Amino acid sequence: MADNLKFPVITIGREYCAYGRTIARILSERLDIPYFDKDFVKKTVIESGFSEDEVNSEGESISSLSLFIENFLNGTAAYNSYDDIFEAQKHVIVNLAKEPCIIVGRCADFVLKEAGIPSLDVFLYAETDFKLKRAAELHPGNDTAHLKKIMKKQDELRRIYYKHYTGHDSYDFSNYDLCLNTGIIGVEKCADIIEDIVRGTR
Amino acid sequence: MADNLKFPVITIGREYCAYGRTIARILSERLDIPYFDKDFVKKTVIESGFSEDEVNSEGESISSLSLFIENFLNGTAAYNSYDDIFEAQKHVIVNLAKEPCIIVGRCADFVLKEAGIPSLDVFLYAETDFKLKRAAELHPGNDTAHLKKIMKKQDELRRIYYKHYTGHDSYDFSNYDLCLNTGIIGVEKCADIIEDIVRGTR
Repeated sequence: MADNLKFPVITIGREYCAYGRTIARILSERLDIPYFDKDFVKKTVIESGFSEDEVNSEGESISSLSLFIENFLNGTAAYNSYDDIFEAQKHVIVNLAKEPCIIVGRCADFVLKEAGIPSLDVFLYAETDFKLKRAAELHPGNDTAHLKKIMKKQDELRRIYYKHYTGHDSYDFSNYDLCLNTGIIGVEKCADIIEDIVRGTR
Repeated sequence: MADNLKFPVITIGREYCAYGRTIARILSERLDIPYFDKDFVKKTVIESGFSEDEVNSEGESISSLSLFIENFLNGTAAYNSYDDIFEAQKHVIVNLAKEPCIIVGRCADFVLKEAGIPSLDVFLYAETDFKLKRAAELHPGNDTAHLKKIMKKQDELRRIYYKHYTGHDSYDFSNYDLCLNTGIIGVEKCADIIEDIVRGTR
């Protein structure tokens, strides 16, 4: 199935709780290609020699906003280790993209562009009210106000991470080939749209 | 055909030469609803009592960048007349949106949001190389370097205009429900995607 895809490599950037992972999973099943999310971070660990704890704590949030900004301004050792982790992740992303696949997050769109590897770059987002349902599933027992805070912080951290490593604003659509509001369009319909473009048919 | 549309009102923001008007025309034919571009500015003239020359020169570029910035900073009479024209255009846009239609440009997405009128808000863009073909059709006899300058200036003027009247960056996808790179996805395919969403079928 994956042999005749117009875009064999798909990157998905997303807001927290905008169903990016769900859409990646649907596409993975329909197109019969793997998707990589948090799991592939472990591959980075193996390649880079970092401890699993170090890489997991870096994620896309770089531990905590204040720590990140502090390190950003002072260029401390901790900051440098994040850079090393990012470099190791770049190698993993470029290696993954040698085969058809879907890569969620980790500035994969930028990494592949820089490496000259073609990809269909997607960004998924939604209004807060729509994302609250997913947030409640992921963080049971929290009230709406707290869920909103969690989402806001996650999105801020991702945006800072993207800005730091790519030099671009992750909310500027010109980084991507298509940006879809999953709440307005619908999760299944978003998957349909991306699938159609990736197959290059219809 | 227009009776059962999930999104009877569509707004299209676009980069210069990204085929926004072409896609509006295709959608207009397929969905059997009118689209409004430069033509509806003339309605504004009638409603607002401005001369046709005044309104045509305002367009979305506000005459010239330097004039606009100067007026923006000094709040001169000329600047106020642009505000009055914008206000008049708002009334026209809100009136047009009482019936199913497509509105291209003029911050229609923002105007309708402010008025509480639901719409599907689309932004269309593309890489410079793709847009050059359209630019050459619109401005025959110019070399590539000059066409690039024309496009860049048009986009800058539109971006400033949008920022001034909406307070938002027109390149931030969260203003819209979907943003499509017409060069990567293809003009016809973009029309397919929008049509599918607007009909709410499939």
